Amino acid sequence: MNIEQKHIAQHNDSLISAHNRKLAYLKEDFPQHDLERAIQKLVDFQIAIPSWALGTGGTRFGRFSIIGGEPRNIEEKIEDVGLLHQLNASSGAISLHIPWDIPQDVAKIKEVAGRFGLAFDAVNSNTFQDQRDAAHSYKFGSLQHVDKAVRQQAIAHNIEVIKQGDKLGSKALTVWLADGSCFPGQLNFRRAFENTLQSLEEIYVQLPPDWKMFVEYKAFEPNFYSTTIGDWGQSLLLASKLGNQAYTLVDLGHHLPNANIEQIVSLLLMEGKLGGFHFNDSKYGDDDLTTGSIKPYQLFLIFNELVEGMDAREMNHAKDLGWMIDASHNVKDPLEDLLQSVEAIMLAYAQALMVDRPALNSAQQRNDVVRAQEILQHTFRTDFRPLVAEARLRANAALSPLALYRDLDYRNQLIRKRGKNTTSTGL
Amino acid sequence: MNIEQKHIAQHNDSLISAHNRKLAYLKEDFPQHDLERAIQKLVDFQIAIPSWALGTGGTRFGRFSIIGGEPRNIEEKIEDVGLLHQLNASSGAISLHIPWDIPQDVAKIKEVAGRFGLAFDAVNSNTFQDQRDAAHSYKFGSLQHVDKAVRQQAIAHNIEVIKQGDKLGSKALTVWLADGSCFPGQLNFRRAFENTLQSLEEIYVQLPPDWKMFVEYKAFEPNFYSTTIGDWGQSLLLASKLGNQAYTLVDLGHHLPNANIEQIVSLLLMEGKLGGFHFNDSKYGDDDLTTGSIKPYQLFLIFNELVEGMDAREMNHAKDLGWMIDASHNVKDPLEDLLQSVEAIMLAYAQALMVDRPALNSAQQRNDVVRAQEILQHTFRTDFRPLVAEARLRANAALSPLALYRDLDYRNQLIRKRGKNTTSTGL
Amino acid sequence: MNIEQKHIAQHNDSLISAHNRKLAYLKEDFPQHDLERAIQKLVDFQIAIPSWALGTGGTRFGRFSIIGGEPRNIEEKIEDVGLLHQLNASSGAISLHIPWDIPQDVAKIKEVAGRFGLAFDAVNSNTFQDQRDAAHSYKFGSLQHVDKAVRQQAIAHNIEVIKQGDKLGSKALTVWLADGSCFPGQLNFRRAFENTLQSLEEIYVQLPPDWKMFVEYKAFEPNFYSTTIGDWGQSLLLASKLGNQAYTLVDLGHHLPNANIEQIVSLLLMEGKLGGFHFNDSKYGDDDLTTGSIKPYQLFLIFNELVEGMDAREMNHAKDLGWMIDASHNVKDPLEDLLQSVEAIMLAYAQALMVDRPALNSAQQRNDVVRAQEILQHTFRTDFRPLVAEARLRANAALSPLALYRDLDYRNQLIRKRGKNTTSTGL
Amino acid sequence: MNIEQKHIAQHNDSLISAHNRKLAYLKEDFPQHDLERAIQKLVDFQIAIPSWALGTGGTRFGRFSIIGGEPRNIEEKIEDVGLLHQLNASSGAISLHIPWDIPQDVAKIKEVAGRFGLAFDAVNSNTFQDQRDAAHSYKFGSLQHVDKAVRQQAIAHNIEVIKQGDKLGSKALTVWLADGSCFPGQLNFRRAFENTLQSLEEIYVQLPPDWKMFVEYKAFEPNFYSTTIGDWGQSLLLASKLGNQAYTLVDLGHHLPNANIEQIVSLLLMEGKLGGFHFNDSKYGDDDLTTGSIKPYQLFLIFNELVEGMDAREMNHAKDLGWMIDASHNVKDPLEDLLQSVEAIMLAYAQALMVDRPALNSAQQRNDVVRAQEILQHTFRTDFRPLVAEARLRANAALSPLALYRDLDYRNQLIRKRGKNTTSTGL
Repeated sequence: MNIEQKHIAQHNDSLISAHNRKLAYLKEDFPQHDLERAIQKLVDFQIAIPSWALGTGGTRFGRFSIIGGEPRNIEEKIEDVGLLHQLNASSGAISLHIPWDIPQDVAKIKEVAGRFGLAFDAVNSNTFQDQRDAAHSYKFGSLQHVDKAVRQQAIAHNIEVIKQGDKLGSKALTVWLADGSCFPGQLNFRRAFENTLQSLEEIYVQLPPDWKMFVEYKAFEPNFYSTTIGDWGQSLLLASKLGNQAYTLVDLGHHLPNANIEQIVSLLLMEGKLGGFHFNDSKYGDDDLTTGSIKPYQLFLIFNELVEGMDAREMNHAKDLGWMIDASHNVKDPLEDLLQSVEAIMLAYAQALMVDRPALNSAQQRNDVVRAQEILQHTFRTDFRPLVAEARLRANAALSPLALYRDLDYRNQLIRKRGKNTTSTGL
Repeated sequence: MNIEQKHIAQHNDSLISAHNRKLAYLKEDFPQHDLERAIQKLVDFQIAIPSWALGTGGTRFGRFSIIGGEPRNIEEKIEDVGLLHQLNASSGAISLHIPWDIPQDVAKIKEVAGRFGLAFDAVNSNTFQDQRDAAHSYKFGSLQHVDKAVRQQAIAHNIEVIKQGDKLGSKALTVWLADGSCFPGQLNFRRAFENTLQSLEEIYVQLPPDWKMFVEYKAFEPNFYSTTIGDWGQSLLLASKLGNQAYTLVDLGHHLPNANIEQIVSLLLMEGKLGGFHFNDSKYGDDDLTTGSIKPYQLFLIFNELVEGMDAREMNHAKDLGWMIDASHNVKDPLEDLLQSVEAIMLAYAQALMVDRPALNSAQQRNDVVRAQEILQHTFRTDFRPLVAEARLRANAALSPLALYRDLDYRNQLIRKRGKNTTSTGL
Repeated sequence: MNIEQKHIAQHNDSLISAHNRKLAYLKEDFPQHDLERAIQKLVDFQIAIPSWALGTGGTRFGRFSIIGGEPRNIEEKIEDVGLLHQLNASSGAISLHIPWDIPQDVAKIKEVAGRFGLAFDAVNSNTFQDQRDAAHSYKFGSLQHVDKAVRQQAIAHNIEVIKQGDKLGSKALTVWLADGSCFPGQLNFRRAFENTLQSLEEIYVQLPPDWKMFVEYKAFEPNFYSTTIGDWGQSLLLASKLGNQAYTLVDLGHHLPNANIEQIVSLLLMEGKLGGFHFNDSKYGDDDLTTGSIKPYQLFLIFNELVEGMDAREMNHAKDLGWMIDASHNVKDPLEDLLQSVEAIMLAYAQALMVDRPALNSAQQRNDVVRAQEILQHTFRTDFRPLVAEARLRANAALSPLALYRDLDYRNQLIRKRGKNTTSTGL
Repeated sequence: MNIEQKHIAQHNDSLISAHNRKLAYLKEDFPQHDLERAIQKLVDFQIAIPSWALGTGGTRFGRFSIIGGEPRNIEEKIEDVGLLHQLNASSGAISLHIPWDIPQDVAKIKEVAGRFGLAFDAVNSNTFQDQRDAAHSYKFGSLQHVDKAVRQQAIAHNIEVIKQGDKLGSKALTVWLADGSCFPGQLNFRRAFENTLQSLEEIYVQLPPDWKMFVEYKAFEPNFYSTTIGDWGQSLLLASKLGNQAYTLVDLGHHLPNANIEQIVSLLLMEGKLGGFHFNDSKYGDDDLTTGSIKPYQLFLIFNELVEGMDAREMNHAKDLGWMIDASHNVKDPLEDLLQSVEAIMLAYAQALMVDRPALNSAQQRNDVVRAQEILQHTFRTDFRPLVAEARLRANAALSPLALYRDLDYRNQLIRKRGKNTTSTGL
């Protein structure tokens, strides 16, 4: 289901003069070269949409009435991402989750994705839920499990996911483990860690040479006493022992209260071990809210470290890290939520690109704390949304994706096509 | 399904001499009068078991393999509580949750409960989930909702719950609202509070004169930006405006990190507005772990305030507050988990009863902080489990309930009777 | 020590054309009436500077090298606030702290303040430190103390502070109590609360009829187990029992992790019991960092509630609440830090004034969560700094206070005048 | 100032029969061999007392009235530790802090220590405060500083501390850095880390071959935005890069809210990189309260991991890790506080020694979570204080150190000897 290009063109026509005025305003204050450089980087930057985020989410207390028109299969999920990508030209990849999305007909799936210009980002394994036909339960963990047979089942699943991803053109495996314990005494922490390492090693050797393994960490939930890969230190330890293809993946919601995530990002980049991101926002725990909805300044500070650290290593912003959203949409239309998330990420990236870095370095060298704050806050307070819009415009997408989505009444189109009571696989 | 009294007798016979030795040991250090008084209070003390805690729980990531033999209906739930009560003589009440447990045949249910000597504790309403046939959704709240029709549906449900409870002999309604918001701007906090108050007032006037309304608060989850009854201050404000039959209910897991719950308990007692408790334990949020499994000293400190504060108001420990468990059992046999929770609560209560209160008061008057700590910790470090066991013995229950439960292989008896794949209603 | 008006004029001349361009840009997107209304309110809005924030602060680990030129007495403190007010026209009041600032010569002090157009805001008592000649120590609390004599000393001090403030024209007493306990058992919470209430009552009756009493709360520090006025609920309880002149004061840093402060603000306004604010920012505890430096979006959300709630009660934004900064400057020039704090507060206020409130209300009524977020974030992302600058311009202050302060090399002027090693009273 | 041995003997005589009864009681439930093994390990276990903990502490809000009789110099500090060691036979070492304690007369100091049987534990450097005569300030960090000259000063200080410690017989340097930042932008995280590493390397090469370097981490305070060695991951990264003599030091109060410290301990032991401990307790941050006063169960769980992990590596409990207290005593007599802390540590260690480890391993292998909890809690709820007392008895110390300290009115003896208004160097 495509948006006709003429709808985008009409939409942009109606907004173009206001847009040009805003862009011109920025040009009076910032060097043309810097703005152009930022716009080009924004054009190149793509954020993968996770397949499980296309449907309505829930909490442990249940799931409320479905928004309707949710994708019924993997092809429709790809179509939804394609829609987003048509609207914002920044969602050019989909991240699949096995077994929620098992590609039956690879050729067809690749054809659908190709039609929308979508790549397949990291594939995600799932050993935090039991599958109907599974021989073993992950109730007491998967890669950490005391029973070798359970670990083997989980290892085999991960290897299977690599194979599935390889066929589609993915280049990374994301391993998020819920493994941990709910009560003191339940687990021998050391053996759990060692089992996990050993299991990951068996998966790691199956990686194609151009693949990466992303080792995700999380402070708590769904285990409420310990998580076996609980923080960046544990993830880095594992990634270091595994080898050059293993990296740490940062999910913004997976930290203890008050953690300084931007510092973690900086150090992982320093170590050459940052693999990528799961974007979302949160106030209390892994709340999986829309990116940028709660702490937009922190998001900017994280991107500030990303740009600084990637440039220090001469990395390619768009290609050398994995950029993914991981959120749950309990009270919003999932597609609208994702449009908001992408917009917030692009804006934070634009802001980070526009930081006056020589001036900041100089202030840091002089310990001019007041000036350093002024530099960052001046950038943050400047309205750089026109840069993001301009990047979209140049990529033939919509100046205001959310407005166009609503104007076209897209959700109702989806409902008419797919029905009111469809549900997506996922959380 | 009953435990034969002879099994309990045999069990106790095998442990009695060791038990008597332990009890005698305590008698050498503590006045007989104090021990007897504590034992009697322990005999009297009853903790209600929530009907939803008799089955395996889950998290938002799903639910693992069921333990088997779970109660298939309300009668079997009552039987399970009856089993617990036979074992520990401290679980003499059940707290029902509507609509998870709708009493169809009141006479029969009362008969079953009566057979086990069980009372019906507070009934719980549920407006945090949508029911299949409901006209309105609670996706955006229930008693707080901007739409009067939704509020009316939720009010009517609560009144219905009162009626159901009244037939069974309950004397309190517990109102826990998930109402709140996930994003800044979603809610007008003031109007949400005012709507909630107005709705509660409409329910309150329907309370029978000998009933209480328990207004529960919770800091976060399932809403992740704001909760409309988010802390004890908000609950107290509502309870005060509602009137003399309204009280605050404290759930141990419903606080922000590091909250001093024992102080809250003390102040609510001071105001005459503490209604009761939902017991559980947690490390991160509303983890709903076994009571006493994470922070047993905090549990003791809470009971220390309870005993001190109830005595200051000459309250009846057993009758004047509502004592309930609220937990979720993801990795344990629910009945074993509940036995552990009740044991932990009884022990904390026993410890609090045995605090040398005149000495503590004196130390406080002299600001002798070291001595005050010594008094509390001496009590906490003393092994008062024999008092709890003695209370059980005197009430014809088992000296070691968990051991007997396992010895009798009760779970397998339940599986044989009810089947392997039964599931209970609840979270 | 005055800034010559010509320096301000020269400074503004150099920036005026850029400023006018920015202001004109806003006029293209927002109704002239709304902008004018906001500018006028910004002109009227004044934030009190606490006398103790004019010197370099420290932590319990000590205090680093002093910036130099710190005010040596109360007159020089007033001069420093006068300087700030000349620069930003938004710091038109000073909040004194007794006994750090004891006005010896009231007439002279009023004269100095008058010269700078400064008012005397709330006076602050101090019973969290022992004074050299005090008969009793506050080691174990002041208004809560078990010993009536200690309480009386603390009561007398507060009454004395009222008298001092009355002579200067203050209209409010801020009571912040460090009272609490460091160890379980140290305190009887109930009696501590009751003693505190009784003590506050003795102070309350001494308030002149046009005075307010601000009852501040704090979750922890310097007591690390309990604080007797520990959260807004406890403060509100006290303020309600005291009477119509008593109000709750909110300090942004005085909460448990993840607290939703904006909701607290809304409810206190609803109850007519919000007295005022201590502004600062923090990441971990009462970090006393520059306002807006860590969580600027939260600051905006708080002001969003303030404007909404004050308007709902038809309150005068500038006069009906107490607006104060409370911060500590360990690594910045205190005057620069204060300029940054005031700027951040003014900007958040400007943003809150510019929220499209009818549209927000409408979105809330329709539960259009996406739209509600868009409205707030559009306002937050728009650069409203020109409104704040325009307000300053109209009040004959500097378009860019911090830049002018640095251009005039004011700190070195102060050092030359006052010396390098002066220290201010305060933390 | 010595306690006469006869006072200890009289004290023990008065308690011996009760003690023997309690010990005999334990013997009925636990194998004699296990009890004896635990007692012997308790006899061997020594906890170093930090020199700065012998005086009254304070907070950033000031320091309250001094308890009196505080040690006026290093010799008197050693005497105080000697007193503690006479009382409990578990405080056989002192940890000095340079420059708070600069040993002028090494021979004499060693003589005083020798008289009390005290060893010199890790020496602590201090680059978090400026010294009067220092050429450079640490306001913006020490080993992380952007200016090489400041780093060199800090490096030289640490090398000097090693030399001082070497003369006294210390075998470890503890490096705790307050280095970090208070505001976003202030610091380049990567360069700060790299500078810190380089500086530590320059210190590391100066370590005598039998010395260890302990790299301490801390989440926050006194810097309130970032700390350069902020968590165990950062410390481990540094220790790994430095070499075999570098280890991570864990201070219980240096974590974000809800951190699972026992898991960190287990993993550091697994990596062979745990260096030692700073014991204290806390509810909110680095509260530096008496060990075991807030979360005694967590303390036990930590010791449970320590014993398990050290045994797995066949380490010597008493010698292979550094055991130190780090606390601050604001409302208690420092010596009483330290007696309470040592008692709590010894009890947690005794409990951990008495865990039925084969049974626990077996429960873990079977994923019998209920049983695993029962095993740990049975141990924790058993009163093992008699084992600790017996260890003291065998080492000629007091059965009840705190009681004897009070009976002898030792504080007043110290006041008479040293005066009422003495103050100790330290926080």
